[in-house]
Amino acid sequence: MSMSVDMPSLSVVSWNSPGEWNGMASTVTVDLGERSYDILVGGDECLLQSLPVAGGKKTRGLVVSDANVDPLYGDWCEDALSERGWLCERHVIDAGEPSKSLATMSELYDHAAELELERRSLVVALGGGVVGDLSGFLAASYLRGVPFVQVPTSLLAMVDSSVGGKTGINLPTGKNLVGAFYQPEAVAVNLDVLQTLPEREYAAGIAEVIKYGVICDAAFFGMLESNADRIVARDRAVMADVVARCCEIKADVVSRDEKEGGVRATLNFGHTLGHALEAVSGYGGWLHGEAVAAGMVYAARISERERGFPAAETERLVGLLHAVGLPCDWRAARDGLEWPAIRGAMSRDKKTRGTIPRFVLADRIGESVFGCVVAEDVLSAVFTAA
Amino acid sequence: MSMSVDMPSLSVVSWNSPGEWNGMASTVTVDLGERSYDILVGGDECLLQSLPVAGGKKTRGLVVSDANVDPLYGDWCEDALSERGWLCERHVIDAGEPSKSLATMSELYDHAAELELERRSLVVALGGGVVGDLSGFLAASYLRGVPFVQVPTSLLAMVDSSVGGKTGINLPTGKNLVGAFYQPEAVAVNLDVLQTLPEREYAAGIAEVIKYGVICDAAFFGMLESNADRIVARDRAVMADVVARCCEIKADVVSRDEKEGGVRATLNFGHTLGHALEAVSGYGGWLHGEAVAAGMVYAARISERERGFPAAETERLVGLLHAVGLPCDWRAARDGLEWPAIRGAMSRDKKTRGTIPRFVLADRIGESVFGCVVAEDVLSAVFTAA
Repeated sequence: MSMSVDMPSLSVVSWNSPGEWNGMASTVTVDLGERSYDILVGGDECLLQSLPVAGGKKTRGLVVSDANVDPLYGDWCEDALSERGWLCERHVIDAGEPSKSLATMSELYDHAAELELERRSLVVALGGGVVGDLSGFLAASYLRGVPFVQVPTSLLAMVDSSVGGKTGINLPTGKNLVGAFYQPEAVAVNLDVLQTLPEREYAAGIAEVIKYGVICDAAFFGMLESNADRIVARDRAVMADVVARCCEIKADVVSRDEKEGGVRATLNFGHTLGHALEAVSGYGGWLHGEAVAAGMVYAARISERERGFPAAETERLVGLLHAVGLPCDWRAARDGLEWPAIRGAMSRDKKTRGTIPRFVLADRIGESVFGCVVAEDVLSAVFTAA
Repeated sequence: MSMSVDMPSLSVVSWNSPGEWNGMASTVTVDLGERSYDILVGGDECLLQSLPVAGGKKTRGLVVSDANVDPLYGDWCEDALSERGWLCERHVIDAGEPSKSLATMSELYDHAAELELERRSLVVALGGGVVGDLSGFLAASYLRGVPFVQVPTSLLAMVDSSVGGKTGINLPTGKNLVGAFYQPEAVAVNLDVLQTLPEREYAAGIAEVIKYGVICDAAFFGMLESNADRIVARDRAVMADVVARCCEIKADVVSRDEKEGGVRATLNFGHTLGHALEAVSGYGGWLHGEAVAAGMVYAARISERERGFPAAETERLVGLLHAVGLPCDWRAARDGLEWPAIRGAMSRDKKTRGTIPRFVLADRIGESVFGCVVAEDVLSAVFTAA
């Protein structure tokens, strides 16, 4: 079974010649009825614009951040909360995926209880995907739900994890096995923070950017190819367009399928192998975006066999990934990556039914299908191909 | 600030002369749009009628129960799941409130991961409030949500905790501080299981039954008074009517206020002191219903001062509580119950704003108001009155 995707025609500006950054924040609305919210993409003014005003003098806002981000942006965030009337508290976790655990969650719960957070308190996620997922689940589950604002500081979080309301933590046996769908009040994207991102992490974020092009926007993919050097250089004008476009696509997909029964599945292009690579390497070896980059190439090669995806387009994908500094060859890293272990991890993926993983495949760049079952021999052959 | 409650006029049968049990299950629908579901109240056939059919041969159903209930009803539940095509697994927790913890939750998550539960798997809560709240939160948060069915085996769970979608666990600092609003697919009430309930636990359940009468149904309260002896004797005909009526009231309240912004608050009549008594005694000394019974008398006495609640109606309430075997005098148990500790626990209640608890009070039996702020001297005077 595979299901075709009728992706939206979105009205977007000139992708082939991004202009100078005009200094104006752009707004992307995630349309979810009562739970609708805005993503502001711009400079550091976005945070203040996104924050609700505190409902009382002593109402607390808890900023959750990590040991890398807090020293850089914690004070900025605290100042903004104070200006909006919140009594600001900060909670700093260790940086990295191992913090996305029930143990860290337990510490957050205890801190929230100690601070006597109320239902009108505010949780602010200041950080990348780990901080966003963890504090989003804190907000979803503490007192059965308190308001929360996302302030993504990694490219990955800006274009992907902060949009769409997925929150969660990992278990030793798998990624994101525990969590909730929970929408923030607002997302504030301050593009200036991209300048302080470590190179490897920045590159990993571009994997999800490229994914949007492959699954539904060939013109955007072309724009990324034309501007690869400016993207690598973190050019503000280009990145303003890139981030806003990614948020637009994700917001549109999420609006039409909040709980992931249909088209939202296409966002998992590259993630079936990606998640398995992360799981087998113990969430330490691969950054999420790096694993997704490899997973996209894997999915593209399967698509060649299953859907007539042109080999030349796989080469364009590989070329773009290389151009932005993403190693995407799982074979080079295959020491210790045995197919049975990878295949076992795929069976434990949330999207799996029984032990049969459902793949997102592509017919060509910009057109994807989801819910695809692929024969076992194809799965292993493409993985182990020289 | 207090808000008046416009309670529904519900169409109900002859409360003053419950007939013989006619052997037919009755159905109460909880109307929540897409998330609507039925509560079946009857005999052991209700479970089979409530269970969805498994979506595949090897699709797992995980029955969560406790060490008291599993030996009595685990096989019955497993047989029903098997008949509906589920591959049944069982998870047995220790009986009692201390199991409603993050530690037990963590064991459940690990078991779910080990069983490789999928999004189309089923979680079945077979037990009282602890099992229901805990496994409801498991269902809400595992894979960001899997279907779940409640099979309440305590009176308290039948008339209260299994209806309305509140799930959660306790933290050392407070009850139900972590959780989710998550609706089951169905609730199956098998009245036969009331026969095996320990006497103290059965009596505690009646506290919540009486609460419904006080907050919105004077006729029901009168019926309870008239039938106190048959209720104590667990008369099947009376209890069929009693349980169905409580579910009707709760379902109606929840339908109009799922996330507890308004009228749902009335269900907390007696719970402000009740929760504090439980918290201060470390969740060990009082059963929930016992603490609520004491809390209702406390709220009634405050209502006398604040709302002109007739002292004679407080005496009717105390009389009915005694008639069903509920000790409700917190003063008799006051050794170690110091007002400052109780008052501190009230500040940590979820319904509290700042440190000011909001009370549900009554104007007379059958008419209640919520959101009431009560002067500190009244709170302490009523608590410490001889």
